[in-house]
Amino acid sequence: MAARRFAFISETDARQIEPGTTVELEPGGHVTPLAGDTLRARRVTVVPAGSVDPALPADLAPVAEIRRVALGSDHSGVKLKCVLVDRLRKRGLAVEDFGTATEEPVDYPDTALAVARAVARKQADAGIVIDGAGLGSAIAANKVRGVRAAMCTTPTLARYAREHNGANVLALGATLIDAAAAAEIVDTWLSTPMREARYIRRLLKIRRIEEQG
Amino acid sequence: MAARRFAFISETDARQIEPGTTVELEPGGHVTPLAGDTLRARRVTVVPAGSVDPALPADLAPVAEIRRVALGSDHSGVKLKCVLVDRLRKRGLAVEDFGTATEEPVDYPDTALAVARAVARKQADAGIVIDGAGLGSAIAANKVRGVRAAMCTTPTLARYAREHNGANVLALGATLIDAAAAAEIVDTWLSTPMREARYIRRLLKIRRIEEQG
Repeated sequence: MAARRFAFISETDARQIEPGTTVELEPGGHVTPLAGDTLRARRVTVVPAGSVDPALPADLAPVAEIRRVALGSDHSGVKLKCVLVDRLRKRGLAVEDFGTATEEPVDYPDTALAVARAVARKQADAGIVIDGAGLGSAIAANKVRGVRAAMCTTPTLARYAREHNGANVLALGATLIDAAAAAEIVDTWLSTPMREARYIRRLLKIRRIEEQG
Repeated sequence: MAARRFAFISETDARQIEPGTTVELEPGGHVTPLAGDTLRARRVTVVPAGSVDPALPADLAPVAEIRRVALGSDHSGVKLKCVLVDRLRKRGLAVEDFGTATEEPVDYPDTALAVARAVARKQADAGIVIDGAGLGSAIAANKVRGVRAAMCTTPTLARYAREHNGANVLALGATLIDAAAAAEIVDTWLSTPMREARYIRRLLKIRRIEEQG
């Protein structure tokens, strides 16, 4: 996870940085506007020098570029799930829908587990779990090793959940938010990377708790 | 967990029901106003007949009568934690404070783990974990077997977290809510029992996920 370090990033530099990677910028360093556009297009993350800790496991932070999303909800979240599945597919993401498909009651631990496992097994880059308040699905998903699930009611929380906690599963409450609010939360969550080593380092402690059971 | 069933509860009946237990009331059944007062004073929970499932493990639902509370927060939640510790002690609860005590940065997985373990080992009936948004502490606490942690921003969510999800750890975000709002959330959470067998049954599925790791 050692990152290349730059004092200056020109358009030529930007074109030579591998897409999807993270690079460091020295204090007082500069990125030209054109290079900035290129870096964004190549999904390159620029962080302050010293942010990347090569001692941390490379798979600790969540996938920065989310392409495959797993979704699941209990009966109370079916309508919201359908809206989100459509929306994410239209954005070109690969979406796997783990049900449920009707309003016949099902148990939130079952649907949350299906999504959490897909994320833990790296069949999906991220997961979205839905029930009435999202709290139960978040609890159940967090029981799966490698999953960090956060129940978010606002875009601010969604950004925080990624930046600080590297949440790879988002839990939503279908009775708390409408489809428009949910879409905004999901968009923020999907587009926020986890960058700072001081936050990533804390995920190692969560992993240790998982290992102790 | 088999519950006594009543068609009618008089004051005399009420005085003979063991404090802190749950009893069932038949459809169309009646509780006299005086008996109602006595039942509340004895912390007896009255649920509709058929709500209590004797097949479920007795330790699945959270402790209904919370007397011992464990609290912990990272540096961002120290002030809020102090307010809550004072408040809960004044209410006569036994409070164990797992720190941190200063604004020197600490890692939320450490403080959340200390509280979660106290709850899992039944040294506390319930736990409260605090950090900036509460999301990270909820994730870390949920990694501990037997703990169900919910991040709540409103009293409604706190009530839901207990009634539906049997949350035995409450996670709070010190940057999201002020002390007055936190106190209201905590009060609701502490005073809401988990009653319905259909919700308790789902906790068995969460336990199975924990067992599978």
